[in-house]
Amino acid sequence: MSAQHAGRGLVVLLTDFGLADQYVGQMKGALARVSPDLCVIDLSHEVAPYNIVQGAYFLAASWRHFPERSVFMGIVDPGVGTPRRAVAVRAEKRWFVGPDNGLLTLVLAHDAPDTEAYLITGKAQGSSQTFHGRDVFAPVAARLALGEAPETLADHIRHEGLLRAQWSVPREAPGGIVAHVLHADRFGNCTLNLDIDTWWPKLRGRDGLALAHPRHEPLIACETYGVLPGGCVGLLPGSQGFLELAVNRGSARARLGLSPGSLARIVQAESQGLPTARKIPGDTI
Amino acid sequence: MSAQHAGRGLVVLLTDFGLADQYVGQMKGALARVSPDLCVIDLSHEVAPYNIVQGAYFLAASWRHFPERSVFMGIVDPGVGTPRRAVAVRAEKRWFVGPDNGLLTLVLAHDAPDTEAYLITGKAQGSSQTFHGRDVFAPVAARLALGEAPETLADHIRHEGLLRAQWSVPREAPGGIVAHVLHADRFGNCTLNLDIDTWWPKLRGRDGLALAHPRHEPLIACETYGVLPGGCVGLLPGSQGFLELAVNRGSARARLGLSPGSLARIVQAESQGLPTARKIPGDTI
Amino acid sequence: MSAQHAGRGLVVLLTDFGLADQYVGQMKGALARVSPDLCVIDLSHEVAPYNIVQGAYFLAASWRHFPERSVFMGIVDPGVGTPRRAVAVRAEKRWFVGPDNGLLTLVLAHDAPDTEAYLITGKAQGSSQTFHGRDVFAPVAARLALGEAPETLADHIRHEGLLRAQWSVPREAPGGIVAHVLHADRFGNCTLNLDIDTWWPKLRGRDGLALAHPRHEPLIACETYGVLPGGCVGLLPGSQGFLELAVNRGSARARLGLSPGSLARIVQAESQGLPTARKIPGDTI
Repeated sequence: MSAQHAGRGLVVLLTDFGLADQYVGQMKGALARVSPDLCVIDLSHEVAPYNIVQGAYFLAASWRHFPERSVFMGIVDPGVGTPRRAVAVRAEKRWFVGPDNGLLTLVLAHDAPDTEAYLITGKAQGSSQTFHGRDVFAPVAARLALGEAPETLADHIRHEGLLRAQWSVPREAPGGIVAHVLHADRFGNCTLNLDIDTWWPKLRGRDGLALAHPRHEPLIACETYGVLPGGCVGLLPGSQGFLELAVNRGSARARLGLSPGSLARIVQAESQGLPTARKIPGDTI
Repeated sequence: MSAQHAGRGLVVLLTDFGLADQYVGQMKGALARVSPDLCVIDLSHEVAPYNIVQGAYFLAASWRHFPERSVFMGIVDPGVGTPRRAVAVRAEKRWFVGPDNGLLTLVLAHDAPDTEAYLITGKAQGSSQTFHGRDVFAPVAARLALGEAPETLADHIRHEGLLRAQWSVPREAPGGIVAHVLHADRFGNCTLNLDIDTWWPKLRGRDGLALAHPRHEPLIACETYGVLPGGCVGLLPGSQGFLELAVNRGSARARLGLSPGSLARIVQAESQGLPTARKIPGDTI
Repeated sequence: MSAQHAGRGLVVLLTDFGLADQYVGQMKGALARVSPDLCVIDLSHEVAPYNIVQGAYFLAASWRHFPERSVFMGIVDPGVGTPRRAVAVRAEKRWFVGPDNGLLTLVLAHDAPDTEAYLITGKAQGSSQTFHGRDVFAPVAARLALGEAPETLADHIRHEGLLRAQWSVPREAPGGIVAHVLHADRFGNCTLNLDIDTWWPKLRGRDGLALAHPRHEPLIACETYGVLPGGCVGLLPGSQGFLELAVNRGSARARLGLSPGSLARIVQAESQGLPTARKIPGDTI
């Protein structure tokens, strides 16, 4: 990482604090106390309370859309006040600051060669025991964004010891694929923990796919919402790096009864005696 | 437009994405990848999904409160993935970037002499087919905000061909005025598509106005909420450039059963045998 | 206040406008018209409509977490359009701009020696009668944040005459302490108007505390959520400068039926024949 920065430092915030309370504002105040010249961007503060899976997905789907050297503060922290570790992790040419509780599972999944980890031990002066986002993580994130060396802020540790959650790995079995719903968005699209690079080549254009759990429903593997026939459920690459279940101008969440954390089982319908949907002619790239 | 900018470039965001998902954050990441020094302001991300009328109103009510050369990204885009055009429009000394689907109807209503239109044709490298806000519109908006010439980003087209929606025009007839509700705000005030400059001179201080649809209700045409007698419905110029229906410390939306897109018919009550409300003494400017 | 600023000027926004409407965006536009180089931070826009108590708490809990010279715009203004005064107040080395309606009660409670008050009299050119946040307060706040002298923007008045609301003072009586709930947050924690510096030394580590109103419930006075036994209600210093009622990983709001503005009476249970909770062994500092 070069000592020179193009433009001002950038901090990206992800929390489960919501926007109604004063907590996010106070974190931004703590960043501004280090430097009011930082660029601070909200990724989301509406992660469901304590929902590490959803937070992990937001980070994994988003980091590549921010400049290199961006510092992500990911504060979804059900264990605050317990001995869970506070870490700063370098990966994918960005920084990730927050609790070591699995929130970085999907970011770390690609084993980026630049991965390094640091343990944040210093407690901010006068810090409370209950608001680490403002008192512990924000000062570290701000200083990393300004280009300070991590060694001056935290202690180097082995990155292999960072917590990686098991829900992140879909299971492939003769009976089908068992995936997790990572997120259901405002429009009802349901993102699965099936990353496009790994799974789309196996599923794209395949006839006779179906959802077998939680409901029986034919699936059409297609590239865009627009080509989905009305009322059909699609399995699409979407724009977030993971496959999505979607209904054209409808809600897959409502239609299929899915929510973040739900299991979804995808099968080859012919082998299950399930109803099937045919491939759309010409729906390939 | 001068090549010199006073202060940093400014991008104003209007979408129907909501703030719970990661989408707005990713758009801001795409802007920061062009330049982290831009000033980025959220106008609103809570436009009702696909509600072009409401989005058009937010833009029309707001552009004059931002500096000249501001770039508005208006992304309410039910037709994403279909052949609707992507455009950058200069009008009223600002830029407006988004789909050509009627969202600019009210901004274009004054036929500003500086109006120009450009067709955005280049697809961003590696862009998805479903998230044009991040992959197509944000890079163009950022570069316009930095002062780049539009010709380097898009192709000049005739601005007379931009889509203008019919709902924007109220109808005046012997039986009264037929208007549309553009928006109902947090406080229950309902904005009509009656711009103040055209309609307030005709209605200000008039006795015996009444709402005839969707409910029968006397209306008091007055300048401020404060002078409205308790429980009465007012027709006021408000602060947004359009006339509003309001109840002092109450909700006109709840009282009248209105919502964005509703029709509202205003009549001269004497001619309809409707109950009337008298002008407030001294309520003139 | 020195003429020199370290970094750019900072404006912090607190309103009851919500984020769905275009109002907050327009206020930021008005700030950007003075200077797009300001740093503008949202403290919260989800103060309950017209709830001055909650707004006063957000300001009091937050100002110390922002840099000196920050300018807070606090716009919770049920009296807009009536003759309530518009003021700019210097206190605690920050500025506070807004209506003089009690919103600054808790900020002023410490009688900071630097307190000064100014009356905002000039009306912005073309200002509406209903949106003072955008048309009156924003230009003044922006200019103060840029370091302009207050005398050029407003008239010096006696700060002793600023409105201080009576709800801010808890009552201590032989039968117990009568406090108000200032806020109930996303996690259900209920903040009381008992500032830590005054009240925690009196309550910390005391055996046999109980809530006597609105429900009978033993209270454990402890330092952190983590040490609270499951299902017990704690009275804690928290991170906001005021004592909080909390349930470990549960909602004190739901458990106790509290909401902003509620009365809460805390008693020494032995003297009331109420059930008691024992001190947690070792729970002292």
